[in-house]
Amino acid sequence: MKQSKSLTFNELSQSISSQFQYPNSNKIYLQGSRPDILVPMREIQQSDTITSIKSVHNPPIPVYDTSGIYSQKNSEINLEKGLPQIRSSWIKRRNDTDQLTHSSSEYAKTRQQDSKIKNFRFNYIHQPLRAKSGLNITQMHYAKQGIITDEMEFVAIRERAKISKLMQMPEYQSLLKQHPGQYQSNYFPTNIDQITPEFVRQEIANGRAIIPANINHQELEPMIIGRNFRVKVNGNLGNSSVTSSLTEEVEKMVWSLRWGADTIMDLSTGKYIHETREWILRNSPVPIGTVPIYQALEKVGGIAEDLSWSLMRDTLIEQAEQGVDYFTLHAGILLNFIPMTANRLTAIVSRGGSIMAKWCLAHHQENFLFTHFEEICDIMKAYDVSFSLGDGLRPGSIMDANDEAQFSELKTLGLLTKIAWKHDVQVMIEGPGHVPLQKVKENIDKEIAECFEAPFYTLGPLVTDIAPAYDHITSVIGATNIAWHGTSMLCYVTPKEHLGLPEKEDVRTGIVTYKIAAHSADLARGFPGAQLIDNALSKARFEFRWNDQFNLSLDPEKAREFHDKTLPAEGAKIAHFCSMCGPKFCAMKISQEVKDCAKIEQGMLEKSIEFKQKDSDLYG
Amino acid sequence: MKQSKSLTFNELSQSISSQFQYPNSNKIYLQGSRPDILVPMREIQQSDTITSIKSVHNPPIPVYDTSGIYSQKNSEINLEKGLPQIRSSWIKRRNDTDQLTHSSSEYAKTRQQDSKIKNFRFNYIHQPLRAKSGLNITQMHYAKQGIITDEMEFVAIRERAKISKLMQMPEYQSLLKQHPGQYQSNYFPTNIDQITPEFVRQEIANGRAIIPANINHQELEPMIIGRNFRVKVNGNLGNSSVTSSLTEEVEKMVWSLRWGADTIMDLSTGKYIHETREWILRNSPVPIGTVPIYQALEKVGGIAEDLSWSLMRDTLIEQAEQGVDYFTLHAGILLNFIPMTANRLTAIVSRGGSIMAKWCLAHHQENFLFTHFEEICDIMKAYDVSFSLGDGLRPGSIMDANDEAQFSELKTLGLLTKIAWKHDVQVMIEGPGHVPLQKVKENIDKEIAECFEAPFYTLGPLVTDIAPAYDHITSVIGATNIAWHGTSMLCYVTPKEHLGLPEKEDVRTGIVTYKIAAHSADLARGFPGAQLIDNALSKARFEFRWNDQFNLSLDPEKAREFHDKTLPAEGAKIAHFCSMCGPKFCAMKISQEVKDCAKIEQGMLEKSIEFKQKDSDLYG
Repeated sequence: MKQSKSLTFNELSQSISSQFQYPNSNKIYLQGSRPDILVPMREIQQSDTITSIKSVHNPPIPVYDTSGIYSQKNSEINLEKGLPQIRSSWIKRRNDTDQLTHSSSEYAKTRQQDSKIKNFRFNYIHQPLRAKSGLNITQMHYAKQGIITDEMEFVAIRERAKISKLMQMPEYQSLLKQHPGQYQSNYFPTNIDQITPEFVRQEIANGRAIIPANINHQELEPMIIGRNFRVKVNGNLGNSSVTSSLTEEVEKMVWSLRWGADTIMDLSTGKYIHETREWILRNSPVPIGTVPIYQALEKVGGIAEDLSWSLMRDTLIEQAEQGVDYFTLHAGILLNFIPMTANRLTAIVSRGGSIMAKWCLAHHQENFLFTHFEEICDIMKAYDVSFSLGDGLRPGSIMDANDEAQFSELKTLGLLTKIAWKHDVQVMIEGPGHVPLQKVKENIDKEIAECFEAPFYTLGPLVTDIAPAYDHITSVIGATNIAWHGTSMLCYVTPKEHLGLPEKEDVRTGIVTYKIAAHSADLARGFPGAQLIDNALSKARFEFRWNDQFNLSLDPEKAREFHDKTLPAEGAKIAHFCSMCGPKFCAMKISQEVKDCAKIEQGMLEKSIEFKQKDSDLYG
Repeated sequence: MKQSKSLTFNELSQSISSQFQYPNSNKIYLQGSRPDILVPMREIQQSDTITSIKSVHNPPIPVYDTSGIYSQKNSEINLEKGLPQIRSSWIKRRNDTDQLTHSSSEYAKTRQQDSKIKNFRFNYIHQPLRAKSGLNITQMHYAKQGIITDEMEFVAIRERAKISKLMQMPEYQSLLKQHPGQYQSNYFPTNIDQITPEFVRQEIANGRAIIPANINHQELEPMIIGRNFRVKVNGNLGNSSVTSSLTEEVEKMVWSLRWGADTIMDLSTGKYIHETREWILRNSPVPIGTVPIYQALEKVGGIAEDLSWSLMRDTLIEQAEQGVDYFTLHAGILLNFIPMTANRLTAIVSRGGSIMAKWCLAHHQENFLFTHFEEICDIMKAYDVSFSLGDGLRPGSIMDANDEAQFSELKTLGLLTKIAWKHDVQVMIEGPGHVPLQKVKENIDKEIAECFEAPFYTLGPLVTDIAPAYDHITSVIGATNIAWHGTSMLCYVTPKEHLGLPEKEDVRTGIVTYKIAAHSADLARGFPGAQLIDNALSKARFEFRWNDQFNLSLDPEKAREFHDKTLPAEGAKIAHFCSMCGPKFCAMKISQEVKDCAKIEQGMLEKSIEFKQKDSDLYG
């Protein structure tokens, strides 16, 4: 996709249509128990293995796919109209919602009537849904009633990713071999068939997993966040007052999905926050999260002291009716925790946390997100917005890691989790931050204990402070470790962290880096079938099927580009070497010859055993 | 430094002189017990902290420095002449070496007389030194005799990095605060003062550490590799038959030092291997390692079957007399281990390993590096070349990790270690490869047990196979973990791994990425004083001293470049925000206001305690 500063939405749509597809891949849909449950996947086609004697078929490799219809051949992409509303029939069937004639938020109403911003507005705004009076419509509520929703079935199929089917097919036998994982969890699946819709229901009912799925985000392809499922990745985007435009943010969103973002947070703090979010939601097949206090602060001109519960309340309703799937709310930062940060090296580094702290101090009052928490739950459950309880006191430096302030807030988040669950509102918990490697595990262990296994959603953590411009790397080290031990979703960090607003290439780097963390953690935990893609890629590598190696990788374009930098000729794509070692020194080439040689001269094997006996005497 | 394809050595020298220095840094030298022991360090100057009331001095931060005289202001850089030979007086004082009139290697002699390659030759070739007949001159030998060499004193001062002096100075008190480490080692220093020359001697004598320091590499600034010292990083370079030039390789070397490489391996496999190495050695202040089999193979036109012990022997002497500090030798890959790789997904992926395997099979004979191991020890000890015992059977894919082939070879390397130690030859052990995260620790634990704590030197390991073009990242995750648990040196991996020969920018990315791993592991182990730089940088960050933040980072240029992309004005370097959040949403800005506010209204603290009591009832 081209750079977009100057693109219109129409041009961007066309650019996506023509350039978004993955090389040599097919989009497939797995049908659930009803024809309108169609779970997307991608299958990567492979070329044959060709030896001097024969040609052997290599089967297509299925991968979990977050890219929506953007990667589907011949699909009509029209960002101005938005995505098809695949959940609308599901929600209608449940018959537990009312359609409102207009938004219940005062601000949204004004905004939608403001003719000055007409050109920035998404043109096909839906009438919002809300739970019928007296009904609870959250996934957790259904789960607790023993009811399996379409969303639950969808995510069960999605997590299984065709693995149990492949297990029946001889050509996948060796590719599906996998190291045992090492993970402490009573419910972690050791066999892919354990992931049934009923299993999903139980995990949701017990609060160990969430499906962020606002009833007003009907474009959503549901996904699940929980420690007994695949590890997920969130990508942040959003403008700031200093930089970025509307089209750019939508492009970053689509671009994030292409690299595999499982959810997106719109952290806009600049102009047109309401409008930006509408564009993003209507075009996003993945859950969208926000930090509503950012918009609230923008509404009061950036003066934290001027914030109020009523303004916040209106903002929550505004965003819930647009379809935001989860809200980061810094409800655990209490007045008496603030002095604990006074002797920190970097005090409070969470934007939301610092805003709330400032408000608390200015008014000498307790955090209104805490004091109004049950009212917030009432709003959340009317739309099924999930909590992402923010860690306003996360450490912003190695020095401040795992301190009293941080862990006091974490304990409070556990208290709030229990309250939310009383309302059947889904919850995940946000985590640090900057933490040295030897103290990373303590964070997830404490979270599991004190927040009762509610999914942990961490930013990094960064394991050193000394590498600005490389903080995707300092953080992915901590992220992979914390995910291995139980974190459910990782919030990406881009190379621009601490330095500036990420651009398109930073987003790509951030997402791919975090897909590495998530997948490596799946391997370390031993998620069934996770190693299939590693095995397939390594087989392609060893057989010098260069194009297959590229296509199976997390970033096919960059792998190809790097290879072609020194050996651009098409013929080099089947050459038995690359420029790293050249033809004479390629270990894999020599090693293949060794293999052939070993096969021809079977007698060598016995010979080698003779030698073994001699050798062991040689140096005793 | 400019791109160099077309540069002469003279132009490259000038380019280094004018562009190599670090921003706002001074090179300093700490003197040892003699005036010719001058240990280099770098001090990063900081600006003052300016508040509305006063201006507070921030002290200079010392950092371990690998960049030789290249980073010294007003030093004369002349690559055509090479570096000053700082070790020559030390070696002369020991009076245990003979100066030869010419190389003892037949190949080297021919090469030095070949007029056709005159233009490629380094012009100031030294007469080689060799141990006097009957004497053992290795650092290990001296250590075992209870003698502290100048090299040992040098590394002791270097590892301490001024920390004990800083501990006396009030302005460093808070900056030196550090989290306790988590590391299993009986000898790991918990206090910087434990690192005395005598401590270094003991570690060398016991084989737990090595100082790779060939007597023919007198330009060397000695460094130590061992698990009770700072974690080190190696950078690979070298041409291949497909690409790269002589000047380019020297430039990559100097470039690697600038980013912090502790040793360099010259893995050239293309043309002018002998000459390239001479240029590199004469201009390198860090130890140089090689894989001699690469050159041996080149000498026989790439036909592994044509290798022989006599050719190999001449190659070892050729390189030892040039000054190579450590040799990677794949002496542990035995004939009877080769069939163990037959069912692997990626068989043998070590170049050296595959070459030896091919030779073994072709001749139906045991590995000549194994059968001639004691003769090799005799060569090593005549020059004090250290062993880096190669892992020819390291896994090349997640599937093949920690298998019988790999661990059989590791056990053999332990056997060879004992033999080398009998000759007082220094040894380190090479390690994997591709290993899923849950199996990484087993590698270092086994190495420590089976190779008797000889330093482990690992490549990554990569924790997934699926991200070619990002393998600096897949590997740094494994590298940081394995270093935390005891690896002494990490071999970098660049983004080009598996795809092509790294270029200058790849080298920079690889080194910085691995410096992150090494430093993060130092933090995790709790190396005394390691956290100083993190604390200083975070303090600068929190106080919006942008230039100090950049200068203290591992890559000042890139940090500055990323920041300036959106806010290039000089004024933005003291602005209390960046483009990421903009002025109204900067957490650190708000947080500073919160701090001020908290100070002014002390009464708030009591107020907050009142609130606490009320709140805990609120949701009790």
